[in-house]
Amino acid sequence: MTAEVVETPIIKIIDRVRREVDDRLAAFLDAHPAPVADREVAEGYRLLREFVVGGGKRIRPTLCYWGWRGAGGDVGPEEPVITVGAALELYHAGLLVHDDVMDGSELRRGRPTIHRSLARQEDRPVGQAFGQSAAILLGALAQAWADELLSVAGSDGPGMRAAWRLFDQMRSEVICGQYLDILARACDDGGSERALTVVRYKTAKYTVERPLQIGGALAGADPALLEAYSRFGLPLGEAFQLRDDILGVFGDPSVTGKPVTDDLREGKQTVLIAQAFARARGPQRERLRAWHGDPGLDERHAAELRQVIVETGALAHVESLIDLRVDQALAALRDCAIPSQASEALTLLAGRLTHRVL
Amino acid sequence: MTAEVVETPIIKIIDRVRREVDDRLAAFLDAHPAPVADREVAEGYRLLREFVVGGGKRIRPTLCYWGWRGAGGDVGPEEPVITVGAALELYHAGLLVHDDVMDGSELRRGRPTIHRSLARQEDRPVGQAFGQSAAILLGALAQAWADELLSVAGSDGPGMRAAWRLFDQMRSEVICGQYLDILARACDDGGSERALTVVRYKTAKYTVERPLQIGGALAGADPALLEAYSRFGLPLGEAFQLRDDILGVFGDPSVTGKPVTDDLREGKQTVLIAQAFARARGPQRERLRAWHGDPGLDERHAAELRQVIVETGALAHVESLIDLRVDQALAALRDCAIPSQASEALTLLAGRLTHRVL
Repeated sequence: MTAEVVETPIIKIIDRVRREVDDRLAAFLDAHPAPVADREVAEGYRLLREFVVGGGKRIRPTLCYWGWRGAGGDVGPEEPVITVGAALELYHAGLLVHDDVMDGSELRRGRPTIHRSLARQEDRPVGQAFGQSAAILLGALAQAWADELLSVAGSDGPGMRAAWRLFDQMRSEVICGQYLDILARACDDGGSERALTVVRYKTAKYTVERPLQIGGALAGADPALLEAYSRFGLPLGEAFQLRDDILGVFGDPSVTGKPVTDDLREGKQTVLIAQAFARARGPQRERLRAWHGDPGLDERHAAELRQVIVETGALAHVESLIDLRVDQALAALRDCAIPSQASEALTLLAGRLTHRVL
Repeated sequence: MTAEVVETPIIKIIDRVRREVDDRLAAFLDAHPAPVADREVAEGYRLLREFVVGGGKRIRPTLCYWGWRGAGGDVGPEEPVITVGAALELYHAGLLVHDDVMDGSELRRGRPTIHRSLARQEDRPVGQAFGQSAAILLGALAQAWADELLSVAGSDGPGMRAAWRLFDQMRSEVICGQYLDILARACDDGGSERALTVVRYKTAKYTVERPLQIGGALAGADPALLEAYSRFGLPLGEAFQLRDDILGVFGDPSVTGKPVTDDLREGKQTVLIAQAFARARGPQRERLRAWHGDPGLDERHAAELRQVIVETGALAHVESLIDLRVDQALAALRDCAIPSQASEALTLLAGRLTHRVL
């Protein structure tokens, strides 16, 4: 008890890690100006920079840090784990830029998406096709940079090498998760099982399990601990996505940063929607069929869709799925042989993630 | 003279290197099945694999190999340079998949492009948007894999680290080159100078200078040799692209693998076209304005465009630019202090590249 008292409070550590990751990102971007002297290329770089440093909850670096702490990483220098966290964030920025092109999204983090900004430059109308192409390039650039940042952290020592292999696996997994997601939408295959597979690969492994394991590997975690991180991370990651799906339909736009009708209008095939379809009868079903995925969906019909989701019991069911997963995650965490401060921090983060205020 | 006689002939070495790079690529892809068990994801992986192993002239790995040999790399094991060459090829495949999405190209290497193949799957009509999104993902996957392959080659030793930094620079450069290219098309800015900047970044540095330097760095080349590779590689790379531009308008589709009207229909802003615009007068100019970049361009009007390009002297001028650059490259090569076999091979490759039969 007495030893615990002198520890830096968890909240302070979380804030400090976030700040250090931000600083590392800013320093990296400063050191990488465009290799060609061109006003328009510079503008693309500026937009990407703004997107990377100007927002984001830094969930993955935070989990990576605590995965490292949990594996006893606090005895080594913190620099590598901050750099790896920054690389995760840069890769994520690249993925989001591409995702927004695929989804045709207008807003991200409360601002116009990169492909929209580039399509609408004030002084010259360069058009939508240019915006999309430029965003594909900028997304690929951020992903390449993630990699460069990771290699700057070094590859020496078994810890870094193991972290690297997990990062490689993570990239293939999240790409496949997104592939399944766009496929489900293209084929209008809205089954609950398929939606859960997407959640597992696109979010649970990518956002929680792998960042924790990457941090752990960096500190030399043994296979048993990496396994335990998986048992904690997968249900927590699933719960996080299920919460996100709910917020995408019922959330406050000032918190989520995007219009609350976007997910319904895009026809996202979430577990919430799959449950609503599976449970809807008669006129409920007709309303879902008619308006879910309708590009012209207005606020009135969106409200009716929300009502169907509540009335069918889909919302309550998804809430129960979240609760179940949070319980599973916490049970797995209790079995983890990690320092008590790391355990406490991960518990706190589990709470934040499933209520999405991190 | 007698020592030279027992050396393996250059052509045999070039063929062997290509085969070994192909084998390395195939082995890597075999070791990377899709992490999710899904028929459609497997199909995407299959298409990407077919694209990577089923074609391509392996220009970059070949230059990388001779850059390495030129720096005395033949005394060390060949494995790293083959692996790095394979990584260059995998990255290139990823770029091409993205380029084809941006250009809306139908054919590549004589076959349907990946986004077209995915949009037109026989058993289910998944549509164009899906094809584009899936191709963005598969292109990003190939780029991530390139990186993984590179890290497998190891990062130990100053040679590998220097090669890695050059690879990082190369990625930013080619992305910026492509950015300038799509920008020129979007803004209809067809000046000869801008077109030459695109050529420099998108092709000369990416296809020739950097691969040579990466190979050289791997063998511990000193800064003077890397500089010499640059003096050889930049003009050669520019000549290569200028030849490619000519082939894109006048070439034999069975050799280039794409319809000979594609570049004219897409409105590519090449040096050849910039010269034609700058030189055209009266009705020539009207024909260029009317049909260059017309998506509905037919064979008869394409033939008239070709005639304008010849009559204005643009074709002859670009041929003279190619000759000048080949001369510059060969002069730089003569000043390179590299083994005679490497010098001979690079001379041969200069000939092949500017006539595009490698």
